[in-house]
Amino acid sequence: MSPILTVGSVAFDSIKTPFGEVARVIGGAATYFSVAASFFTDVRLVAVVGDDFTDEHSAVFRGRRIDLSGLQWVPGETFRWKGEYDLDLNTRKTIYTHLNVFQDFQPKIPANFQSTPFVFLANIHPTLQLEVLDQVRSPRFTAVDTMNYWIERTPNEFASVLARVDTVIINDEEARELSGEANLVRAARVIRKMGPKRVVIKRGEHGVLMSFDDRFFAAPALPLEVALDPTGAGDTFAGGFIGYLASAPTVTDDVLIQAVIAGSTMASFSVEDFGLNCLLRLTESEIKARFGEFKRLIHFNAL
Amino acid sequence: MSPILTVGSVAFDSIKTPFGEVARVIGGAATYFSVAASFFTDVRLVAVVGDDFTDEHSAVFRGRRIDLSGLQWVPGETFRWKGEYDLDLNTRKTIYTHLNVFQDFQPKIPANFQSTPFVFLANIHPTLQLEVLDQVRSPRFTAVDTMNYWIERTPNEFASVLARVDTVIINDEEARELSGEANLVRAARVIRKMGPKRVVIKRGEHGVLMSFDDRFFAAPALPLEVALDPTGAGDTFAGGFIGYLASAPTVTDDVLIQAVIAGSTMASFSVEDFGLNCLLRLTESEIKARFGEFKRLIHFNAL
Repeated sequence: MSPILTVGSVAFDSIKTPFGEVARVIGGAATYFSVAASFFTDVRLVAVVGDDFTDEHSAVFRGRRIDLSGLQWVPGETFRWKGEYDLDLNTRKTIYTHLNVFQDFQPKIPANFQSTPFVFLANIHPTLQLEVLDQVRSPRFTAVDTMNYWIERTPNEFASVLARVDTVIINDEEARELSGEANLVRAARVIRKMGPKRVVIKRGEHGVLMSFDDRFFAAPALPLEVALDPTGAGDTFAGGFIGYLASAPTVTDDVLIQAVIAGSTMASFSVEDFGLNCLLRLTESEIKARFGEFKRLIHFNAL
Repeated sequence: MSPILTVGSVAFDSIKTPFGEVARVIGGAATYFSVAASFFTDVRLVAVVGDDFTDEHSAVFRGRRIDLSGLQWVPGETFRWKGEYDLDLNTRKTIYTHLNVFQDFQPKIPANFQSTPFVFLANIHPTLQLEVLDQVRSPRFTAVDTMNYWIERTPNEFASVLARVDTVIINDEEARELSGEANLVRAARVIRKMGPKRVVIKRGEHGVLMSFDDRFFAAPALPLEVALDPTGAGDTFAGGFIGYLASAPTVTDDVLIQAVIAGSTMASFSVEDFGLNCLLRLTESEIKARFGEFKRLIHFNAL
């Protein structure tokens, strides 16, 4: 079992969906990722928060396998985001993004984190992602997420990141924009030519498509009766996916496929309640049970 | 191996997609269904065409395991439909629907077809579907398709059909409209309460969700590099699905799951060219190879 280093945002989110509303709850890509991955292995979190982020807030990380020694507390306000979802939960509008202390964030990887074998660069400015890559020493596995904003505004910087990681984990829209190809088969091929040897495309309620070796693996999402809030589902997927990989002795094709199911399992919990709520009360036995449910959903006995 | 009786439309289609256009090609739900199913078992087709439907046209059925003795030739023009697809091929506009000879179609099931063990009622007026059910004798398996038009305009007639079949094969929009539930888990439950013990929900490029027994099976669609025309893909799925079931000794849960993959395999060919083109030139070895490709796409080795 190997630890994972992750660098990204810890934030206060305000979220409105057709099914309710929450204000100033703890969110951020690195938060969802860390909580999800900590069910599988040790996580080393590097991020920045303001002095409005109290011990009460950091309690979401405590009692979990999350090392907070890379969490920088600086004067000022924590990153804040507010989003509103449409009726089908598939499209959302950002009401505001206040970077606050994140504006001047310089990721500093503590010395004892620099040889972490698994590295996940959550969605932040690609220049910061490059600074992280400059500070780590020959990780065995590196993955990156991003968003359309960076693909559009900092294409060269993001291309430099892509050239230095082995896995990219993005959603279908981002894959299309990044590759300039509407077709996901072609999009995956174009992205792999940019550097990463694996492309994991998150399709929300339609599941995941992974391009690796000479093949694809596709998994549907678990059909859910209750879906209240998709915020953080993609980062939760990444946490389950990489957490599973890091908990395995080696990253084989079978393990990659199992990891897609592990990530999808974690993401299925995440959407069942607002923000982190469902992940925070989750137990290992619930994860095991749902992993089994997932296997049953997609299991195919050949003739 | 059991034969299948199908009743539905044989038509002349004109189709425009962002990738091209064809005019007055042979289409219709029962056509796609029969051609696809005939790769697996014998098909008995009951439909009506006009005197503009020549021997040249009916050649698409010949040399296949399709019995045309229930195909009625009547004076007048064959059913004609024209549709136009949006850029993403997911939404289409019907330019016209000319029922022509289909207007007065009375399905007459030939005596030697009345004990066919597998029955597929393609999308036609539910009153005609009921007339077919009145003429068949204790089939082992009955499935029905429909469209929003009938769900909205003839809800009671369609409810009577649902009460008398064991499987319904519809797309996600139809499932939502029929059940009044946006959520597909709840939609499937509501529809099963209306009669059928299985609901197969076609989600286009997002695959298939089957509700049966106390469970779901979900399969993604095969990621395709070329998709030119989705016309008939749903009926082609139904043809592969029921064709596979009818070719198996018994309909078990494993066989139902394999049948979803068989149907998805056939549908994946269908969209790769306009109209019936791809299905007409298809060989059994291509089907076997792609079935294998499908298995590899979704195959999951548990720990």
